[in-house]
Amino acid sequence: MIIILSSQITEKDLDDLIGNLKDRGYGIHLSRGVEKTIIGAIGAPEEDKVLIAQQIEALPFVERVVPILKPYKLVGREFHPEKSVIKVRDVDIGGDAVVIMAGPCCVEDEQQVLETARLCCAAGARILRGGAFKPSTSPYSFHGLGEDGLKILDAARAETGMPIITEVMDTRDVEMVMKYADILQVGTRNMTNFALLKEIGNIRKPVMLKRGMSATIEEWLQAAEYIASRGNYEIILCERGIRTFETLTRNTFDINAIPAIQELSHLPIIADPSHGTGRWRLVSPVAKAAVAAGADGLMVEVHPEPARALKDGPQSLKPNTFAQLMKELLPIVLAVGRKPSWSNAGEPT
Amino acid sequence: MIIILSSQITEKDLDDLIGNLKDRGYGIHLSRGVEKTIIGAIGAPEEDKVLIAQQIEALPFVERVVPILKPYKLVGREFHPEKSVIKVRDVDIGGDAVVIMAGPCCVEDEQQVLETARLCCAAGARILRGGAFKPSTSPYSFHGLGEDGLKILDAARAETGMPIITEVMDTRDVEMVMKYADILQVGTRNMTNFALLKEIGNIRKPVMLKRGMSATIEEWLQAAEYIASRGNYEIILCERGIRTFETLTRNTFDINAIPAIQELSHLPIIADPSHGTGRWRLVSPVAKAAVAAGADGLMVEVHPEPARALKDGPQSLKPNTFAQLMKELLPIVLAVGRKPSWSNAGEPT
Amino acid sequence: MIIILSSQITEKDLDDLIGNLKDRGYGIHLSRGVEKTIIGAIGAPEEDKVLIAQQIEALPFVERVVPILKPYKLVGREFHPEKSVIKVRDVDIGGDAVVIMAGPCCVEDEQQVLETARLCCAAGARILRGGAFKPSTSPYSFHGLGEDGLKILDAARAETGMPIITEVMDTRDVEMVMKYADILQVGTRNMTNFALLKEIGNIRKPVMLKRGMSATIEEWLQAAEYIASRGNYEIILCERGIRTFETLTRNTFDINAIPAIQELSHLPIIADPSHGTGRWRLVSPVAKAAVAAGADGLMVEVHPEPARALKDGPQSLKPNTFAQLMKELLPIVLAVGRKPSWSNAGEPT
Amino acid sequence: MIIILSSQITEKDLDDLIGNLKDRGYGIHLSRGVEKTIIGAIGAPEEDKVLIAQQIEALPFVERVVPILKPYKLVGREFHPEKSVIKVRDVDIGGDAVVIMAGPCCVEDEQQVLETARLCCAAGARILRGGAFKPSTSPYSFHGLGEDGLKILDAARAETGMPIITEVMDTRDVEMVMKYADILQVGTRNMTNFALLKEIGNIRKPVMLKRGMSATIEEWLQAAEYIASRGNYEIILCERGIRTFETLTRNTFDINAIPAIQELSHLPIIADPSHGTGRWRLVSPVAKAAVAAGADGLMVEVHPEPARALKDGPQSLKPNTFAQLMKELLPIVLAVGRKPSWSNAGEPT
Repeated sequence: MIIILSSQITEKDLDDLIGNLKDRGYGIHLSRGVEKTIIGAIGAPEEDKVLIAQQIEALPFVERVVPILKPYKLVGREFHPEKSVIKVRDVDIGGDAVVIMAGPCCVEDEQQVLETARLCCAAGARILRGGAFKPSTSPYSFHGLGEDGLKILDAARAETGMPIITEVMDTRDVEMVMKYADILQVGTRNMTNFALLKEIGNIRKPVMLKRGMSATIEEWLQAAEYIASRGNYEIILCERGIRTFETLTRNTFDINAIPAIQELSHLPIIADPSHGTGRWRLVSPVAKAAVAAGADGLMVEVHPEPARALKDGPQSLKPNTFAQLMKELLPIVLAVGRKPSWSNAGEPT
Repeated sequence: MIIILSSQITEKDLDDLIGNLKDRGYGIHLSRGVEKTIIGAIGAPEEDKVLIAQQIEALPFVERVVPILKPYKLVGREFHPEKSVIKVRDVDIGGDAVVIMAGPCCVEDEQQVLETARLCCAAGARILRGGAFKPSTSPYSFHGLGEDGLKILDAARAETGMPIITEVMDTRDVEMVMKYADILQVGTRNMTNFALLKEIGNIRKPVMLKRGMSATIEEWLQAAEYIASRGNYEIILCERGIRTFETLTRNTFDINAIPAIQELSHLPIIADPSHGTGRWRLVSPVAKAAVAAGADGLMVEVHPEPARALKDGPQSLKPNTFAQLMKELLPIVLAVGRKPSWSNAGEPT
Repeated sequence: MIIILSSQITEKDLDDLIGNLKDRGYGIHLSRGVEKTIIGAIGAPEEDKVLIAQQIEALPFVERVVPILKPYKLVGREFHPEKSVIKVRDVDIGGDAVVIMAGPCCVEDEQQVLETARLCCAAGARILRGGAFKPSTSPYSFHGLGEDGLKILDAARAETGMPIITEVMDTRDVEMVMKYADILQVGTRNMTNFALLKEIGNIRKPVMLKRGMSATIEEWLQAAEYIASRGNYEIILCERGIRTFETLTRNTFDINAIPAIQELSHLPIIADPSHGTGRWRLVSPVAKAAVAAGADGLMVEVHPEPARALKDGPQSLKPNTFAQLMKELLPIVLAVGRKPSWSNAGEPT
Repeated sequence: MIIILSSQITEKDLDDLIGNLKDRGYGIHLSRGVEKTIIGAIGAPEEDKVLIAQQIEALPFVERVVPILKPYKLVGREFHPEKSVIKVRDVDIGGDAVVIMAGPCCVEDEQQVLETARLCCAAGARILRGGAFKPSTSPYSFHGLGEDGLKILDAARAETGMPIITEVMDTRDVEMVMKYADILQVGTRNMTNFALLKEIGNIRKPVMLKRGMSATIEEWLQAAEYIASRGNYEIILCERGIRTFETLTRNTFDINAIPAIQELSHLPIIADPSHGTGRWRLVSPVAKAAVAAGADGLMVEVHPEPARALKDGPQSLKPNTFAQLMKELLPIVLAVGRKPSWSNAGEPT
């Protein structure tokens, strides 16, 4: 770390600080400029470098501490240059093929899920999404069917062969949800629910970690590091839009994050243009943009009748609009040198 | 709700929509302007108004739906005009007296907590803060002593008589933390951990709900409504700064939120200038500002030796700086027509 | 507009307000709900509807005023459904062809500009960018060559045939810059410099209006309306990223804005991935994303030697990277059903 | 500056970079860690350090450049530790006394201004505000009376003795506005209108520089440096709220900025709670907060009849509410060890 000192630091305070750092095992480079004195402290012990930086910064004569190393390691690309491929039954996420996940926001009833699953599958989606536990800003809204919803997803998987992804919100539910899900989803509102991240780190099952709506890319990777640090390396990231001052759209889809994650991390990155825009008219253009920017896949909300959806109707595509999007995606997938996981006719390959 | 329709809506779609709304029990006011047609739908059934608004907005010929009623009721001031006072042992929060909560960010060891507790109490703090379970962005940082930390807080309460406030992060810990804590704290990172909010709503114990770092004031009140809707009405709100583009400070303390909450809600509002600024030099000015704006109290991080703190050293006050702040707060408290809960000499009254 | 009234409004205040609105020429719809009384005021005189809304909102018994009509008209799509095509010499912007603008951030010297212009032109760029007047956060940085810089651009146009786009920052310079430029650029820092917008509205010359870095899409369209309201309709919009909490990238490129503008306005929309990311490694992926989302063109910073650039080196592409981007863009352009304005071999068509 | 290099840098690139830096006159400290190599470059020539940092950052093997020195000097406290006091006729801004500026948002007519001026003066305001040139988001709104408005302010000054502050928006108007104004105001929308900043730097007249609504504190001080670097040192800063995701209030008043500016700069800092909140009910609490946090003064919008104001009615105080605020401010001013510039009875002292 680099420590920038106030010009008013005394010789004694400087000596004490350097002594303290040496005792902790740091190598020291001291630069005395006319205006500033700077210490470069090299070789920090990994496990407490965040803490030490905070402690140093608390000293009254320290202006600023600049960390040098990235605050994540297992999920970073520096020590793991090859891209990770997460295998979910017969689907590879993060490989050559761009993978589309689709389905309703919430599991409402068996007929709705089966109908949507069939249509999404026919259009080329490879993974079925659907929420049995739904976070909702209002306590008075629908919060999902719980385990009954998972059973409906299970039936849909049995019929269509699509692996299922579904959200888990409570540490107490992880074990039960695992029994049904092929991929566990951690939602944007729980990206900093560290108890949940730890629990998910302890299991061995793919997880998709959505970016917190006000999380920096670095914080998001640290949340992934939580999971990896417990031994679960099967992590998929999902950009779903961030909160900004713009009110026309529900969120601002951060397209920059797609190539930035590809540069910084070896984990696959999925784009969610449904939440990223919040308006169905914008979903298809942003879906195409995400693939053009290099996303490894998409997650899209599809509902047979958005105006009767129990959640997120305004951002859900109707099945025929989704099928149209799949057709339009195909040449974009090829244009960026990837393979689609579906054919020209819209079927999964 | 007000429904603003596209100018291209057909007569049939309009008739269908109005029929649908009438079937749901709404009274209808239709305004046909030259450019826009507007429906005012009056008398929505409380429990599903968010859902209905979403469903209507999903219709292709609907431009926008404007909700009229506030999305919270139990915590709002419209139906509960008198201020709520939360009793915590012998301390009233939300009454005439401005109440100061202070203590270390984390419980590190017994000596640290007892020493800090004594000094804070002597300076006039009435409630002891301290984290036994600590959220931390990095998986490699200190995460708290757990139940052992709670026992240390218990000992500090026994000695000083100060009620204790401490954070709970996991639904599975609520019951255990309740045994020790006088106030449970829900941290900024868990404001949208709805499983935790529900669990806390089911208990009967005061809770302090920190604002999510990117939560609007309306969303924050909805999170409080979650707790209240389960029957726990002893809720204290805490403004702790929001995330903005400014990088000089850790967060931007939203001073506007103090009077806004006093206008919209009957719940007490506490200010946390330590997290709100992230820099100890700014804590005292912002603490005074919050009281001048009408806060019912403060929560301040105090550490005997910030440069050895296991967390948040850069924003912790030393005990003598805290005592100085308490002296400077006194005339501000009186200037806004409140009473201090401590005397001129710094002791609790 | 919709006026939501406090439940405590007196009959007299309500009568006065309704009388006042009728006197101003509004038609009135009154809805009295149990909790709220709402007035729908229809038929506002165009010129002062913003003012009237503000005045109504200042009344103590008014909770909120919700405007119904969009605050722009000339640049909106409702009254001008066909897309506008802006002709710049022999280049059409907003038509079928996707148009690429490229060149250095600043005009530094003749050799740099000519070399860059030739290379960009050979790679397929149709319009040459280059700043002779440069806004810069620091007063001590390079601020451009002024009119000498414009003469260099003129020479580059003479040689390559590319029309030139260049920024104007001062109302006093508009007349002079007009003599050289084919398109005047209003930069992000001047989107709310209303004196400049008015001056530009008074001339007859294409203008490219960059989005303010904290402007909502609605405010951006209002800035365009400023120009149009003075009679200059040749307006091109440019999304260049907005300011958010993310610090890894210089700005957050708002990909949602591309289709949103296409929906709301008939004006062409250009994407600037150089400023939108601030990091050259991210420029190509985001450029492709913008075209996939429907942008009418791109503006890209290219410098023969970024590490010697007098401004914006970190976000400038080298000419060979730019040529590579142009090759990769081609299939994306075709995939979205547009035409490139350059051939497979990289030459302008 | 500190240069953090990619671990893949070659020896040749490293040697070349070090040679290049030495040629520019830097002293070099090289630290080779296991994971990163870091160069500390000391002693940069002042005038082009921003540029050099950008150029270095454009090199492909450079990960990041961390500047060490602050990007402003004349307005910084490091080289000018004593607070600046700006003399405006007989009023000192930045001295012991807290100074209140008040008046209408816009000059509407002589009667409105004279009446407001008398009432504000009687309540204790020392400086009269009023806009003759008004920035407005909509081209169809009222934009001010221009020079006629300045003449009205002149008359109000003649009658009440209050110096006047008024906004200038166009470089072409500076000379004319100077003839009337005692303090020129640069509004939030022009903080990055560098042509205007330069023009204002060339004159010798106090200027109040409002913070840009999305400007960091560092950028705001750089804008002040623009003015100072041209020789005009009579600069007053004004915090007026920043743009965030919160929509309940028009802006988020950044209370942290008050003590932060006092720490970083010697310039006086004024708070504008009218724009900082956008809602008159919040103005008084935030005004008191700003003084408690150490502001050198306030600027408050006052209108005899807000519901007839031609601009900003919702955030304007009525004269009696303003007089009440002045009474309530008095004990706060004394509590923070300052003097009021008005007496207990509300008259200017």
